[in-house]
Amino acid sequence: MFKATINAETIGDVVEATSPLVDEIRLKLSPDGVSLRAVDPANVAMVSLTLDASAFESFDCTDGEIGIDLIRFADVLRMAQKDDVVQIEVNEETRKLEIRLGSLSYTLSLLDPSTIRKDPKVPDLELPANIKMPGAEYRRAVKAAEKVSDHMALAVHDKKFVFEAQGDLDRVELALDQGSGVKIETTSDVRSLFSLDFLNDLSKSAGNAEEIIIELGSDFPLRMNFSIASGKGKVTYLLAPRIESA
Amino acid sequence: MFKATINAETIGDVVEATSPLVDEIRLKLSPDGVSLRAVDPANVAMVSLTLDASAFESFDCTDGEIGIDLIRFADVLRMAQKDDVVQIEVNEETRKLEIRLGSLSYTLSLLDPSTIRKDPKVPDLELPANIKMPGAEYRRAVKAAEKVSDHMALAVHDKKFVFEAQGDLDRVELALDQGSGVKIETTSDVRSLFSLDFLNDLSKSAGNAEEIIIELGSDFPLRMNFSIASGKGKVTYLLAPRIESA
Amino acid sequence: MFKATINAETIGDVVEATSPLVDEIRLKLSPDGVSLRAVDPANVAMVSLTLDASAFESFDCTDGEIGIDLIRFADVLRMAQKDDVVQIEVNEETRKLEIRLGSLSYTLSLLDPSTIRKDPKVPDLELPANIKMPGAEYRRAVKAAEKVSDHMALAVHDKKFVFEAQGDLDRVELALDQGSGVKIETTSDVRSLFSLDFLNDLSKSAGNAEEIIIELGSDFPLRMNFSIASGKGKVTYLLAPRIESA
Repeated sequence: MFKATINAETIGDVVEATSPLVDEIRLKLSPDGVSLRAVDPANVAMVSLTLDASAFESFDCTDGEIGIDLIRFADVLRMAQKDDVVQIEVNEETRKLEIRLGSLSYTLSLLDPSTIRKDPKVPDLELPANIKMPGAEYRRAVKAAEKVSDHMALAVHDKKFVFEAQGDLDRVELALDQGSGVKIETTSDVRSLFSLDFLNDLSKSAGNAEEIIIELGSDFPLRMNFSIASGKGKVTYLLAPRIESA
Repeated sequence: MFKATINAETIGDVVEATSPLVDEIRLKLSPDGVSLRAVDPANVAMVSLTLDASAFESFDCTDGEIGIDLIRFADVLRMAQKDDVVQIEVNEETRKLEIRLGSLSYTLSLLDPSTIRKDPKVPDLELPANIKMPGAEYRRAVKAAEKVSDHMALAVHDKKFVFEAQGDLDRVELALDQGSGVKIETTSDVRSLFSLDFLNDLSKSAGNAEEIIIELGSDFPLRMNFSIASGKGKVTYLLAPRIESA
Repeated sequence: MFKATINAETIGDVVEATSPLVDEIRLKLSPDGVSLRAVDPANVAMVSLTLDASAFESFDCTDGEIGIDLIRFADVLRMAQKDDVVQIEVNEETRKLEIRLGSLSYTLSLLDPSTIRKDPKVPDLELPANIKMPGAEYRRAVKAAEKVSDHMALAVHDKKFVFEAQGDLDRVELALDQGSGVKIETTSDVRSLFSLDFLNDLSKSAGNAEEIIIELGSDFPLRMNFSIASGKGKVTYLLAPRIESA
């Protein structure tokens, strides 16, 4: 069983972190909270997300799994005001999701979880560089880079964290020094190239986070961590690198 | 003759209530005010509107009738600020409509009223259910329903006023109880189905009204009444039902 | 050499005044400031612009000339906040333009100035009518006229400055009297017809100017002057008339 109430903005955070990568999710339910793990159709980006039971205003849940059409679910949430409380309940008989916003109620068909792509294995990566920075600065670098290219390198060298995008003619660079919300720790200089489309997908949610943690290697995947729901939820992204043409 | 000045917002209300249904109107002029009645091209929705002479800041008018291209007229009004005073005058010689907004003047060709569709007869309907509710709640129900279907049922049962839209997979319901701005009077349970396109057209203007009155039967037209222009104008819509497939 | 810092809004004014007419500019550099002169591809409108060294927060410049792709340059400026300081520098070695916005840096390729259209000669016109007016009123006349036609006459007669647009059916007129920010001086009645597309291009920047000066003749070009950058920059437009069909 699953019956919960939650602030519209908090559940909106979950959708915002997930929907840029996938249209359908398999949500794992447990008495401690909910979680999901999903990979985009091109196998380039992975998202893991956990939301603690304490992030809900009320939470009554047994172990289980439901399949949700994220696009329809997001559509419904758009009817809510920021401070609305959303009631979500799985009707055990009809196997439908009932969503209540005040006097308004929606009944959404659930997806059969077995039809949704299997959970990916999360590779266990040791990444030499670890950078803490404001999410807004990350988004700013992505927006700037999109003007000149479709991929961007993230690198640590000379104790700076550098975003670099090189177009046919023009070039964009964002170089962050240690200090003022930025903390750089690394055992070596690193550099990896990523698709800007995916870096942008990741910025949708990360751009709102006060602090994000980026872990980097050389021609290795990027790992990004940040909190949602006032610390009661956690998002991890993993993004595969692109091969840098010589 | 027709020479009047009116607040831009007030005359804008008239356009907003009428233009979702028709592009051209035949405006009836009299010393007491103006009025119009029109049916949409598909014969599904009818609007009747009266605007009292007292809604105008100045009003000098004899009995008559003019044909107005609503699309062009709305276009001109868009140049006005909310608190602007609009001067409207029929030039008797040129048979054109002269509109003045401060130092700006427009001359719009009038349409020959005889080329505009004849006034519809208003059927005299006795409808068992009568619901008073805030216009904003009506609009909210329409917006929610559009996400899942292209038609919506309006019903009274168990002393509740219910909006119901059923899509192929999903379902939306807004159920209003007596109280908090809602007043339901009925002699029997009723239910009629309507096109969401038209319910949406009606919501453009009704959604701004503090209170609207909806009258309903079973598989009968819906009648909606509300005030515009701080009570100095009145709008009535009549909307034909759709047949509910069994 | 060219190395300068400038408020983002001020340099944005330069782009806004120029980019509606041309995509590429040849910017003349001197220790006293920068200037440009350009003609649109159809040879209908000309812009001359000067920006004094004092409009910059710092300005270090020798005589020279650089070619700038305005579209890419505007794109970069869009990343700036209103009060940001933009640092602009020509890298003498790479012949590229380096633009810095805080921690963000862009490297834009410069265009070869010899590939950009030669500077136009500015015809020396004596125009009988001279009108001072608020830029916002000019923009308002243009917006209103666009609703009915694709050209507009500007005229002085009966001591009024009149904008007139005549569509197939409808007509728009803005008549300005002397007074309330409008000052009309003329030695004769004048009237010239102009393309609304170009009048609109001119309004992008002029519409924000507190005061613009329009000089007019009969079937003669229009000349418009106004200040940008709090008086430390000056824009002059020249717009060729269209032949009025009898």
